[in-house]
Amino acid sequence: MDVEPLRFEGGALLVLDQRALPEAERWIRCETVEQVADCIRTLAVRGAPAIGLAAAYGMALADGREEQAAELLRSTRPTAVNLAWALEQCRGAADALEVARRLHREQDEADRRLSALGAELFESGTRALTHCNAGALATGGYGTACGVLRAAWEQGRLAEVWVDETRPLLQGARLTAWELRQAGIPHRVVADSAAGSLMTRGLVDRVVVGADRIAANGDVANKVGTYPLAVLAARHGVPFYVAAPLSTIDPATPDGGAIPIEERDPAELLERGDAFNPAFDVTPAELVTAILTEVGVLEAPYGESIARAVAA
Amino acid sequence: MDVEPLRFEGGALLVLDQRALPEAERWIRCETVEQVADCIRTLAVRGAPAIGLAAAYGMALADGREEQAAELLRSTRPTAVNLAWALEQCRGAADALEVARRLHREQDEADRRLSALGAELFESGTRALTHCNAGALATGGYGTACGVLRAAWEQGRLAEVWVDETRPLLQGARLTAWELRQAGIPHRVVADSAAGSLMTRGLVDRVVVGADRIAANGDVANKVGTYPLAVLAARHGVPFYVAAPLSTIDPATPDGGAIPIEERDPAELLERGDAFNPAFDVTPAELVTAILTEVGVLEAPYGESIARAVAA
Repeated sequence: MDVEPLRFEGGALLVLDQRALPEAERWIRCETVEQVADCIRTLAVRGAPAIGLAAAYGMALADGREEQAAELLRSTRPTAVNLAWALEQCRGAADALEVARRLHREQDEADRRLSALGAELFESGTRALTHCNAGALATGGYGTACGVLRAAWEQGRLAEVWVDETRPLLQGARLTAWELRQAGIPHRVVADSAAGSLMTRGLVDRVVVGADRIAANGDVANKVGTYPLAVLAARHGVPFYVAAPLSTIDPATPDGGAIPIEERDPAELLERGDAFNPAFDVTPAELVTAILTEVGVLEAPYGESIARAVAA
Repeated sequence: MDVEPLRFEGGALLVLDQRALPEAERWIRCETVEQVADCIRTLAVRGAPAIGLAAAYGMALADGREEQAAELLRSTRPTAVNLAWALEQCRGAADALEVARRLHREQDEADRRLSALGAELFESGTRALTHCNAGALATGGYGTACGVLRAAWEQGRLAEVWVDETRPLLQGARLTAWELRQAGIPHRVVADSAAGSLMTRGLVDRVVVGADRIAANGDVANKVGTYPLAVLAARHGVPFYVAAPLSTIDPATPDGGAIPIEERDPAELLERGDAFNPAFDVTPAELVTAILTEVGVLEAPYGESIARAVAA
């Protein structure tokens, strides 16, 4: 865990403010559930697994008001299922902090397992493309999509990473590029709209992304722009991998149509005139080559492989 | 011509600095060919037809050094064929200014014709999506893709326009939104990566874009991000129209693979780390529903329809 988005110290949750990265390393000290909820809502901490962990640590600050705290934390962001999942893990726990620390540890273990599994799918010299940030900053562990890239790099299988800048908040250009730089992995940032050109020129061998919620049938909600990548990858015969821990899979959501998609402030996009700013999109399972989890590489038919993975 | 990107007055070419729009309306006075070339190279004037006109007006400032002037102007930007085409129109002319004024007038006429033809393809209540800026600013006339939108609006066929912000230089968010606002056309800006979500939700009835060069077989070079839109449109059964004057069609370029794609400064994208910044991409003819020109709506097989249109 070289890059730590969350630390619990001295009775408070320290949140690395990801809005300020990479220019500044600023920590926000949260002593109340309200402050943690604010950090999640305003994207100081983001990434499905990391906001789940932040919520769990938030429960350690609930101070006897567990029910209200869980309600408040659950309401912060609608799409990532890890948030609800982590709160469920804390429910009725005698020591929420202990649960949060365990989830944090388990996240890192899951990341490392799925990253090792994913890296094996890379041939030597692979040029991979990723979108948004699914690295240590997004998970609190080794990273999911970026974890796969790190593991592939350590095994000598990765040549270069194309990093979608990821509008509107530039999590790719700001966060993923920063993590890859720290890991010494060669990378270049591209406009989100350039992925088609890269594939036309044969410069992309694999697409690897994270996920905010995976439905029971394998449909994947992730940062807006993921679905167009999957369509392009299918057209160009480029494998399209989704890397996510089991906690991101929501067996209670039958398919992508049932996943709530957060719409964020148009001002994130521009400050003149009207705008429409969905934060996520849904990639139909038919476009996903494999879902990389800590219990194995899931393949179609996803209804079955997901049900088996979740039941095990 | 409500919005004028170019004016020739008092022996100088006045260029509306599109880099400063919409915040400021700043005019650059060019008294030499070198100044005009600078304006084209640095995108003070952009859009395939408009840079063709700027080059033609530039020839009016050649002052006896026609050959060098044409060479300099031709070298400014490689992808748009209108530049070379306009210089060809000026070759050997006794009065380059007269030629430039004629081309300017003809551009407006072509825009209006193709816009009227294109608008007929819109049903009442159409929600259209466009990318980059192919409006009056880009052509010096009524606009091509934006001209189609204007004509459809005037005929009561258009409900709303989705405007791709168009990274890295935001020509959609800055220029197209500004033109649509002036025309009173309802519109919302979206991240380039959101087009897939819009189509999934059934919110896009037509895609209309301009072009920088159309090869003899119908392959279309246009602002990077156009090709992913065409792939998405095909997947969702949304008609994908390219609006362009005949001067954008290059019968000497057999297909998209032969179109030179400009790579611009990575600093346009971000100023930390490495980046790759192709300015255009190529959309294969198979993904184009129709090419809207001033002489008619061209359809597949494009090799034949283009040859006929150019010969006529």
